[in-house]
Amino acid sequence: MNHKRNVYLEMKSIEDAKKILFDNFGSLVTGTETIDVVDAKGRVLAEPAVAAISSPNFHAAAMDGIAVDAKSSFGATEETPVRLVPGKDAFWVNTGHVMPEGTNAVIMIEHLNILDENNIEIEAPVFPWQHVRKMGEDIVATKLLFPRGHRINSYALGALLSGGIFCIKVYKKPKVMIIPTGSELRQWHEVDVGTMKPGDVIESNSAVLGGLCEDHGAVFVRHPMLKDNLDKIKQAVSEAARGDFDMICIIGGSSAGSEDFAKPVISSLGRIYVHGVTMMPGKPVMFGKVHNTPVFGIPGYPVSAIVAFEQFAGPLLLNMQKLGEKQISEAMVFPARKIASKLGQEEFLRVKIGSVDGKLISSQLPRGSGSITTLTEADAMIRIPHHVEGIPENEGVKAQLLRPLSSIENTVVIIGSHDNTLDVLADQIRAENGRVGISSSHVGSMGGLMAIKKGMCHMAGAHLLDPEDGSYNISYIKKYLPDHKVWVINLVMREQGLIVPKGNPEHIESLEDIRDRQLSFINRQPGSGTRILLDYKLKELAISPEDIKGYDTDEYTHMSVAVSVLSGRADAGLGIRAAAQALDLDFIPVITEEYDLVIPDRFYRTSKIRAILDTIKSDAFKKRVVALGGYDIKNTGSIIYRPE
Amino acid sequence: MNHKRNVYLEMKSIEDAKKILFDNFGSLVTGTETIDVVDAKGRVLAEPAVAAISSPNFHAAAMDGIAVDAKSSFGATEETPVRLVPGKDAFWVNTGHVMPEGTNAVIMIEHLNILDENNIEIEAPVFPWQHVRKMGEDIVATKLLFPRGHRINSYALGALLSGGIFCIKVYKKPKVMIIPTGSELRQWHEVDVGTMKPGDVIESNSAVLGGLCEDHGAVFVRHPMLKDNLDKIKQAVSEAARGDFDMICIIGGSSAGSEDFAKPVISSLGRIYVHGVTMMPGKPVMFGKVHNTPVFGIPGYPVSAIVAFEQFAGPLLLNMQKLGEKQISEAMVFPARKIASKLGQEEFLRVKIGSVDGKLISSQLPRGSGSITTLTEADAMIRIPHHVEGIPENEGVKAQLLRPLSSIENTVVIIGSHDNTLDVLADQIRAENGRVGISSSHVGSMGGLMAIKKGMCHMAGAHLLDPEDGSYNISYIKKYLPDHKVWVINLVMREQGLIVPKGNPEHIESLEDIRDRQLSFINRQPGSGTRILLDYKLKELAISPEDIKGYDTDEYTHMSVAVSVLSGRADAGLGIRAAAQALDLDFIPVITEEYDLVIPDRFYRTSKIRAILDTIKSDAFKKRVVALGGYDIKNTGSIIYRPE
Repeated sequence: MNHKRNVYLEMKSIEDAKKILFDNFGSLVTGTETIDVVDAKGRVLAEPAVAAISSPNFHAAAMDGIAVDAKSSFGATEETPVRLVPGKDAFWVNTGHVMPEGTNAVIMIEHLNILDENNIEIEAPVFPWQHVRKMGEDIVATKLLFPRGHRINSYALGALLSGGIFCIKVYKKPKVMIIPTGSELRQWHEVDVGTMKPGDVIESNSAVLGGLCEDHGAVFVRHPMLKDNLDKIKQAVSEAARGDFDMICIIGGSSAGSEDFAKPVISSLGRIYVHGVTMMPGKPVMFGKVHNTPVFGIPGYPVSAIVAFEQFAGPLLLNMQKLGEKQISEAMVFPARKIASKLGQEEFLRVKIGSVDGKLISSQLPRGSGSITTLTEADAMIRIPHHVEGIPENEGVKAQLLRPLSSIENTVVIIGSHDNTLDVLADQIRAENGRVGISSSHVGSMGGLMAIKKGMCHMAGAHLLDPEDGSYNISYIKKYLPDHKVWVINLVMREQGLIVPKGNPEHIESLEDIRDRQLSFINRQPGSGTRILLDYKLKELAISPEDIKGYDTDEYTHMSVAVSVLSGRADAGLGIRAAAQALDLDFIPVITEEYDLVIPDRFYRTSKIRAILDTIKSDAFKKRVVALGGYDIKNTGSIIYRPE
Repeated sequence: MNHKRNVYLEMKSIEDAKKILFDNFGSLVTGTETIDVVDAKGRVLAEPAVAAISSPNFHAAAMDGIAVDAKSSFGATEETPVRLVPGKDAFWVNTGHVMPEGTNAVIMIEHLNILDENNIEIEAPVFPWQHVRKMGEDIVATKLLFPRGHRINSYALGALLSGGIFCIKVYKKPKVMIIPTGSELRQWHEVDVGTMKPGDVIESNSAVLGGLCEDHGAVFVRHPMLKDNLDKIKQAVSEAARGDFDMICIIGGSSAGSEDFAKPVISSLGRIYVHGVTMMPGKPVMFGKVHNTPVFGIPGYPVSAIVAFEQFAGPLLLNMQKLGEKQISEAMVFPARKIASKLGQEEFLRVKIGSVDGKLISSQLPRGSGSITTLTEADAMIRIPHHVEGIPENEGVKAQLLRPLSSIENTVVIIGSHDNTLDVLADQIRAENGRVGISSSHVGSMGGLMAIKKGMCHMAGAHLLDPEDGSYNISYIKKYLPDHKVWVINLVMREQGLIVPKGNPEHIESLEDIRDRQLSFINRQPGSGTRILLDYKLKELAISPEDIKGYDTDEYTHMSVAVSVLSGRADAGLGIRAAAQALDLDFIPVITEEYDLVIPDRFYRTSKIRAILDTIKSDAFKKRVVALGGYDIKNTGSIIYRPE
């Protein structure tokens, strides 16, 4: 393999790069087309919408009753009622009817004393134009209903039709060519998930960017996937640029690696304006021009791709339709722990948010730009400007919300130990109660108790064994949360044991085997209940941690331990049976332990916690837990400990 | 015409009506369907999405460089570099490549000292798993990606595909039958706006409600329009209820009038649960059940129809797809004047909002439920609960935003006299500057000065004649805004005169004619510049106001005056030539006057005001003004008065 590399042009800040983008392409506007108003929802007016007719186009009765000349009612009182004759000086009308010639007011039917078909008495006068919708009351012909650049919503359809505007000129939707590239990529419809080879990656960026194009008012065409082949990519870009596309996005190959072809493609067909932006994720983004068409080189890591698109391609698409920038809701959040950030680059940090005690607490998700789930699990994004080195714990900072605040407020934040039944709980609560959601972060049992102490969560999952008496959690709560009133509710009893490869090729039967044969072990992080359990077992067996190869390598969840075993990174790890079973690995039981939820008293009776507890006690939940394997539900939902 | 009436069942509060709705229909859920993930944006999961594969499904290089066993790098320093041989203990990899067997770290290409093809030196060690994306780092197979009830957005497409989920089960979109009824209605494609008869109303509600159905995740079918015919409506409802519709909306005929058939239709085919809700607009809404299908009687007035739909039908549609209620952004606004409201009904008040001096000032739009433009022009809705009698001036109240706050903040609020060139300005500024918008309220020239005094607007339009010296505005500013530093910029010079019907059938030549022949006049409201002009002219001609028939009948805009003349309500009115010309009326010039913009000094140099002033001075704007007729642009944009 060769190792020639492109080089980045001078890196630009987001601000500078955006200025260059708009200096070069800011005047691009899509063409216009004339369409029926009834099809125009979501479209943007390319001309002012001026009413062709008045609405109503006549004086209209605004009530059911009789239309009269107001003068004929003057002088009417209870003592001196005025008599009116239908057909002569009074005319039956319903709401919306044309006011008969010579009338200018409606007397409501409720105020009439109908003597017979020909005689009506009224006991109070009406004033001229009372209960009449005058011609043009809503819309006067020639009125400007909407200026150009206005985006048509559902309400606007009514105003346009009522104003006699049936066809309107709107901006065409910009058309984007999306070209996914990368020799490692496989198209989803060609993949059989059962037989995927290591190294195969399912191409997903084109679907995401296509969705984002639509979200920015554009349409997209997805080019068939291309291998890392300079000529083929060049040909695709060249054809699209000569066609009717308003923008081209090459996904992948925008870095400075030897197989990164976006740069040579754009620079050989046209020119490059920016390559490299001081932001993270998304640094390797580039853009240039081919045949007057803006061409983007979008990095292949999914989060980088999204940030690059949303910072540059998206705003340009909106501008092509004369739409302003996207509106993003913001909220003040308080980081649960200090956030570090590199000077000199703007960072887009994905965070989860919990509303605890009326304060929005954010906890940081992994920074990896390759993890799409850091974005799909995020509630918000914190942007750390390039001149800021980090954000202190618990200092308010603005975050851009990815979910509505009200949904964040209906979310129960669970921080602590990881257990697979929490996933089941998250789904089951949605099945039983559409409003309440769960957000769980896995930081280990002790981390959960600390989160309760800091007021960062509504409940913590914990399975902390007290080696003195074999009890779980309670002694830890007394020690670490002496001033906190908490409830402890059992979620499940579960089997912990050694997770080993399918068929147990090393014939592992115990921790001694691992020491004796110097097999590689994958550990859990300090403070996790499983780590405490391991240390307890090692002590019991008089095994020194130094004698376990891999004791210092740790992972944060049972599933990550199982993955380490599956991928051959380790020969064994301690974890729950459900994790082994999920990845079809073998499992050697070591102990049955108690996994509980610790809930501060002040939340215990709130409706969202009640909803969670009701779900835990439901048969549907218990049935699904049993189906996972390795769980005992005999104590599920029962109170283990209550505040004194 | 007969005058038999239906009666309302006992009226319900919104809350009670909603409870009845959900008690009866809350368990209705649409069926499910399995679709390709790439087509699933916007859809709602009907089952949990559980990852089928891990992503990555292998240990992957996270950097370009060489893959090594970390151990082989241990001990490397600047003084004691370690030499590696490609193909033996080092392997070229690019980002994303599978880590070769036996390697567990990547050394970045930037840190390599490449001696020749077979010899590479490194001067620092790497630790195990450095620059490696471990298998399952993003997604571990069996991980819950999204619980049921989750709405798929663009990002989620990436997580689903990466997790090996290519097809998913989602809730079907609810299907709504919309039946517009009303004998006065005309379908837009059958209407020629030039020859519409008085009493003809263009049917627009079905388009609006159809749009709202889509906004709530549903699809709709529009039934051909029906006349007020009990049997025909009954047949349509009965067929739809036996078909596969999840909801039926009959538009029109939900009141208690003699031609209101929604109630007899629903009650004869099924049963009615609620008829009449204590809200305004939307009071006559009703709903019931036919063959287990919810059927709504939606009032025919456009704003009533929208409120009725959004309070009841919309939330039910969301619930059928297991979606929570719609998220509505709120903001604290301060009413510019006291808002009165009736006890016992919840009112949905449409307001405009301006951000003036950092405070959101709301001004009330007309309450008429027949005016769709009160909703399309509104920036927000204030809900006044049924137990509240009104809201005091300048007391903060929550408003539900209909436009994003940032767009409201980019809007220049113009309050004061009405002139048609303000519409042109509103459109031209959008053509020249996509970001800045204009919101203008017409309360007369004096009203504009008072709005400046109260800090409610960014500029005021005024044409206040000083009868002493023939000057405009300045003497009023000195008198009414003595403590305010303001600029006065000329917008236009314009002709004021008598607006009379086409062909001037009464041969009116002057105000004397109107007095002498007792013709009916339509006046402008007190405090408007035109009213002051009229009074000045009457005094000059020694005509007593009592001798002008209609002196006490007033309208708030030139266009309304012109409409009064067009509709035969008045023989003449005083107004600008542009208004007469717009409605093809005749015009007898009386005076040429100055129409200025009054701008507080503290706003004068802000970017949004500069954008407005630049537009006013542009040739494009001036050209459009001249095309309106009746305007002189010789002073347009020039400074008439500056703060001392």
